[in-house]
Amino acid sequence: MSDSPLSQSRILVIGAGAIGSFYGAALQAQGANVSVVCRSEYDIVRSAGFSIESNRLGDRTFVPAQTLRSVTDYAGGPPDYLIVSVKVVEGTDRVALIRDAVGPETVIVLIENGVEIEGEIADAFPDNELISALAFVQVSRIAPGKVRHYAFGDLTFGNYPSGVTDRARKLAAMFEKSGIKITLADNVVTARWQKCLWNAVFNPASVMGGVLDTDDMLNAEEGESFVRRAMREVCDVAAATGHPLPPQLIDQYIDGTRKAPPYKTSMALDYENGRPMETEIILGNAVRAGRREKVAIPLLETLYALMKMVERKTAKATKQE
Amino acid sequence: MSDSPLSQSRILVIGAGAIGSFYGAALQAQGANVSVVCRSEYDIVRSAGFSIESNRLGDRTFVPAQTLRSVTDYAGGPPDYLIVSVKVVEGTDRVALIRDAVGPETVIVLIENGVEIEGEIADAFPDNELISALAFVQVSRIAPGKVRHYAFGDLTFGNYPSGVTDRARKLAAMFEKSGIKITLADNVVTARWQKCLWNAVFNPASVMGGVLDTDDMLNAEEGESFVRRAMREVCDVAAATGHPLPPQLIDQYIDGTRKAPPYKTSMALDYENGRPMETEIILGNAVRAGRREKVAIPLLETLYALMKMVERKTAKATKQE
Repeated sequence: MSDSPLSQSRILVIGAGAIGSFYGAALQAQGANVSVVCRSEYDIVRSAGFSIESNRLGDRTFVPAQTLRSVTDYAGGPPDYLIVSVKVVEGTDRVALIRDAVGPETVIVLIENGVEIEGEIADAFPDNELISALAFVQVSRIAPGKVRHYAFGDLTFGNYPSGVTDRARKLAAMFEKSGIKITLADNVVTARWQKCLWNAVFNPASVMGGVLDTDDMLNAEEGESFVRRAMREVCDVAAATGHPLPPQLIDQYIDGTRKAPPYKTSMALDYENGRPMETEIILGNAVRAGRREKVAIPLLETLYALMKMVERKTAKATKQE
Repeated sequence: MSDSPLSQSRILVIGAGAIGSFYGAALQAQGANVSVVCRSEYDIVRSAGFSIESNRLGDRTFVPAQTLRSVTDYAGGPPDYLIVSVKVVEGTDRVALIRDAVGPETVIVLIENGVEIEGEIADAFPDNELISALAFVQVSRIAPGKVRHYAFGDLTFGNYPSGVTDRARKLAAMFEKSGIKITLADNVVTARWQKCLWNAVFNPASVMGGVLDTDDMLNAEEGESFVRRAMREVCDVAAATGHPLPPQLIDQYIDGTRKAPPYKTSMALDYENGRPMETEIILGNAVRAGRREKVAIPLLETLYALMKMVERKTAKATKQE
């Protein structure tokens, strides 16, 4: 990567759904050269760009520098930053998706959910700098090429496996100028486990019995007690992998969830809308880490087995359509 | 109870739904004096009796000797046998339902699902003989006063807490004459735990994620392994309560379930049709027994907590209707 100011950086977004286009637009607004790979909505984005509605950041149209069907069409040499914001569901091969766009100096930036999602990319591209980012944002695709930003927008990121490089700081500065609050994490893996502590419990539980909202889950007889015990298992796994979590975090999450009006998790919304769920990166990776580290996680194991049953059922239903 | 032949016995069925009317009809066909308490379908049963369709036992009309709205209307003195076949769901008070019909010589016969369902009745009526019966039958109410018998029909029963009395043998003989196969169990509590081994796992799991059939549950990745571990927990609880189960039973149940075409559990059917589920007697009682006996049952605890979440959701939905 050149030492040019980031405003001249070449940025390629792979997986330009709601998340990818939202953050890509923010960077382009600061002058970066932002291109996108989008497959299903290629035609409409190519002709009109993305229309992004946001009360907080203002409505805008984001016309990418290059709109591509495939990374192999990307012109002008490898990108400085390759932002990967594909939803990781059953069958997603991220390495194959990005391989052709990774140059020797390309910084790979993962803006994705879940835990232990970096190892596969780090192994495939050992000489590239890797930034791991967690998005705290409520943003949805509301129509082809149309994205609505409802709330938040903050990113927490740092380099994988740890530290914060100058290139990460440059990226942070650019986001900050756009009004996106950035928390730089010296240990982003710990930050992932912190987010996972809520997600790995509430997300799968919310898919059981139709879909459940946070009130159903916390206020049912046995509900809070179960949530706490399952969260303790996540803490045990995180600690075993070298990422102990603050002991008060469970209380904080439960209090925070109670204080918010009842709501549905992202997995519940995916399930309701017939979309694939991020079971593997949110829960499966935590379960695999627990097994690898020989931590007893019977509650998480149960949630995971039930999720695989649900996914088997939805996969059959999809095949029949 | 007099020592008259059972064909002259006075039998009162409380909870004359599909199960109660099916078995009541069988006893009446052998000459017993069978009356029923039925509340929601009182008018139609009073005027036309029950219409029972059965390929195996033949179609028949069952006009009870007395059709009653309440046990207090039962004329002619207390019954010899009081058959209790009410569905035990949240809020069911069986003791209050039957108290006025229990005379000093009345044999109480429970034809119900679940484990540890007898103690409450034995405590309330310590001087009455108590028979505990498990129905292996596929029978449904298809319209008011109309019952369809699809398959099976066998009963396993014995006295609670153990043994088989002459009165139990008399009842068995009468059922057998009607073509109902009876297995007399010296230890009916063990028999309940055997049935629970399947029910306490497959029933609640089947309610997760819409409803799951046996194929979804057994053939999902992690599915069979989860089912086996959860069944082992049921075995541990049963053993701790003094009812060790045959070690090969888990294999037998899994093989049997695999060999049958995929099907939905009774709890899944209740859930789909918006009916209350027998969570407490099928799973809750097993969980409480495990807690009492200090057996580690994290998989069953998880299923139970999730079921209570689902029930909280369905209770709210019912209130809104």
